[in-house]
Amino acid sequence: MSGTRGKGERRRIKMLVAYDGTDYHGFQVQPGMRTVQAVLEEALGRLAGHPVQVTPAGRTDAGVHAGGQVVHWDLYGSIPVDRLVTALRGLLPQDLVVYRAEETHPDFHARYDAVSKIYRYSILTGPHGWPFIARYVLHHPHPLDVQAIKWAGRLLQGRRDFASFQAAGAATKTTVRNLMRVDVDEQVMAWGRMLHITFEADGFLYHMVRNMVGTLLEIGRGYRGLGWLEEVLNARDRRAAGPTAPAQGLSLVEVKYGR
Amino acid sequence: MSGTRGKGERRRIKMLVAYDGTDYHGFQVQPGMRTVQAVLEEALGRLAGHPVQVTPAGRTDAGVHAGGQVVHWDLYGSIPVDRLVTALRGLLPQDLVVYRAEETHPDFHARYDAVSKIYRYSILTGPHGWPFIARYVLHHPHPLDVQAIKWAGRLLQGRRDFASFQAAGAATKTTVRNLMRVDVDEQVMAWGRMLHITFEADGFLYHMVRNMVGTLLEIGRGYRGLGWLEEVLNARDRRAAGPTAPAQGLSLVEVKYGR
Repeated sequence: MSGTRGKGERRRIKMLVAYDGTDYHGFQVQPGMRTVQAVLEEALGRLAGHPVQVTPAGRTDAGVHAGGQVVHWDLYGSIPVDRLVTALRGLLPQDLVVYRAEETHPDFHARYDAVSKIYRYSILTGPHGWPFIARYVLHHPHPLDVQAIKWAGRLLQGRRDFASFQAAGAATKTTVRNLMRVDVDEQVMAWGRMLHITFEADGFLYHMVRNMVGTLLEIGRGYRGLGWLEEVLNARDRRAAGPTAPAQGLSLVEVKYGR
Repeated sequence: MSGTRGKGERRRIKMLVAYDGTDYHGFQVQPGMRTVQAVLEEALGRLAGHPVQVTPAGRTDAGVHAGGQVVHWDLYGSIPVDRLVTALRGLLPQDLVVYRAEETHPDFHARYDAVSKIYRYSILTGPHGWPFIARYVLHHPHPLDVQAIKWAGRLLQGRRDFASFQAAGAATKTTVRNLMRVDVDEQVMAWGRMLHITFEADGFLYHMVRNMVGTLLEIGRGYRGLGWLEEVLNARDRRAAGPTAPAQGLSLVEVKYGR
């Protein structure tokens, strides 16, 4: 901490945030709703002694979790940044944790500066659920064709028009995104098989991951083949793809920044 | 299924049950409260078509979890037992799962026939909590002396009088129990250090695990030494031991039966 800093100097803070999204109506502030942004801004405001507005890398939907959300905000005053994590512990509920905080360059922007984001969707297959992960997975009671899901995931990769996977009614300048990676990983646990599907892209359209997962599940169930996936991509129409997978299996796991 | 079985024949069912105890007022039925027993009996009653009473191996307290609770109950009628797990899936909330069900010998008793029970207490140490396990651990922000906890755990082992670890006011014929095993295991995770303390005994007094953990934490924090633990054991007085550790870190992980 520089001793010459005045009370009024602006410091831009970058923080890593994890939350269980089950009991939040998404990230973004909505009047009368418990949102991640509202709970975070209230705690930060109490610490900072001034109103705070946080900007996230990704505005996660209701019920979506984050293990590696990044936010930025501006701190005025002399609070030591290296004590933020400890000080916030007592001000935040146990389902929302700030696990790193640092001062960054004054024009850092959590969303615009992100090079890529990584989302993971987790599916438990087996005859029964498991209570300790139930909030973080989609339980699918029947076996899935994991190899078909892997092939389909590969077909989705690349810079392409993902219009078919954008929520109906969403408005964006372009529906072209670079989907750099779709990894499909299966783990056999004592209580069932866990399927983790990891997506990395330079940006995601609204509901894009959940719509891709809903589409991959149609293929994993054997209802549809890989040829259908090509049709879905080419249609550039939300109605061509599978249903939207539930929010609870989805988590924002990492945001990557350039140098 | 035997075709000769009549509608009225009694079958004793043994089930393995897992639950997140956070939103339950313990196992045992209490009027007006959401308890594991009440939720389970209601679902089983709907399936069986007659009132059901379940008997557990261990009556876990409010907020205590189970990965391997065992219960028995009597089923009258012709429902195939091998479909119970699947049928119960749709009748139970996601924080309560029956993951095995079988017909057992008619006089099997979940509690009296148990040879030993295994409880595990989990502690997360580090500057911040972690939302996805927050319901299942005690978060202790400061480092613990794990080696001292291991030594203390060894001192607790054996057949001895655990009166100092029984909740004040509890009445039992004897406070002697055989504590066969206290294992202390530390895992380093990306989000902190996890300490799992596993206790196996032929039986546990009321609050015995949580009172032992509270006492081990006094030693792990460096507030007390191993000599104090000897004094605690010899005192046979609840006031001599450490405080009761919170319920949320505790889980009944396994119940063992003889041949």
